[in-house]
Amino acid sequence: MLQHIHQSQLSNWERFYRANFINSLSGFKSAALIGTINEAGITNLAIFSNIVHIGADPSLIGFINRPKAAAPHTLQNIEHNKVYTINSIPAGMIEKAHQTSAKYNDNISEFDAVGLTPHFLPSVLAPFVEESPVKYALELVEIVPITHNNTFLVIGTITDVLVPSQLIASDGFIELHKADVVTTLGIDAYFGTQPLGRFSYAKPNQPLATI
Amino acid sequence: MLQHIHQSQLSNWERFYRANFINSLSGFKSAALIGTINEAGITNLAIFSNIVHIGADPSLIGFINRPKAAAPHTLQNIEHNKVYTINSIPAGMIEKAHQTSAKYNDNISEFDAVGLTPHFLPSVLAPFVEESPVKYALELVEIVPITHNNTFLVIGTITDVLVPSQLIASDGFIELHKADVVTTLGIDAYFGTQPLGRFSYAKPNQPLATI
Repeated sequence: MLQHIHQSQLSNWERFYRANFINSLSGFKSAALIGTINEAGITNLAIFSNIVHIGADPSLIGFINRPKAAAPHTLQNIEHNKVYTINSIPAGMIEKAHQTSAKYNDNISEFDAVGLTPHFLPSVLAPFVEESPVKYALELVEIVPITHNNTFLVIGTITDVLVPSQLIASDGFIELHKADVVTTLGIDAYFGTQPLGRFSYAKPNQPLATI
Repeated sequence: MLQHIHQSQLSNWERFYRANFINSLSGFKSAALIGTINEAGITNLAIFSNIVHIGADPSLIGFINRPKAAAPHTLQNIEHNKVYTINSIPAGMIEKAHQTSAKYNDNISEFDAVGLTPHFLPSVLAPFVEESPVKYALELVEIVPITHNNTFLVIGTITDVLVPSQLIASDGFIELHKADVVTTLGIDAYFGTQPLGRFSYAKPNQPLATI
């Protein structure tokens, strides 16, 4: 039965029920680990699920960072170094990835705490996740404050990509499903994917072709 | 073989190859149809894949709108009416959903062109998609210009949700996979999903439980 839920009901719901509901309503999302390093040289790793493609030329990727009080370390490190990595999560890594959301003290590296391996490139002042099949480094472009709820849209441009060549299709598409990269829904659910199809550029009055 | 691709290579790639690569690099995304209506009363429907959860209290959902010259109708209608709907895409609807990305004249409704049915609530000045299992209406909160590439982060708050009661778990989580709602990757690829698990709220030095 199709239920009609009005704004006034939403705002009266118990906090965690509402968070589960609203977080899953907007659909499947990218889940990835953001790697940074602090002034003392301690690596930080945190799972983020609100990553958004902003543009391909220049390459701009954004993510939503929660209010500073709730999630300070990643944003502090990015503000300081202007550099961070985004690392994909394959199905076998979901438990470790989820565990990075625990509030560890800032003298503890989540890499050690959850059992993942930092990997460095000489030119990038942020750790990659060795075990992630696809990963990329970004240089900070802008932090846009979203005043309505004290969150931030953090925008970066891609400086380095590490990707297995066999995942790159002839037209540049990256077949992330072949590396078992997951998608996420709501606050805490992880999903595998299976391809349904790719379609050609759509034009009025012209049937789509599959790619 | 892990390939290292540097920024300088990315910017030299052929435009469509780069677009496919960068769009898929950031991972699986929500795909949904945004419904609006113009001043002449003609309904508009367009697929968007960069939808982002911003907050649950107040409920804030954002999406990235391309530059105005490339994708004018949805944004014009939202600016005028301050109201729009976001409608989920089940596997059986992906071809029609993709076809809404064709550049139709503004006197043509994509509902008619692709064969989907507009559904109205008396209180909402925007069409829902009858065939979408889960859908919600939003009131415009803010349009944030992203100056680096002339795109926009459009932020709305949820006013009405239409959702089958049987998809709502006891803790508020919406089991979108049970309605075959798809996820998308890159510019043109659609995927079904299968659940891998949900995990409890993570705390340091405490093993995760599955939900």
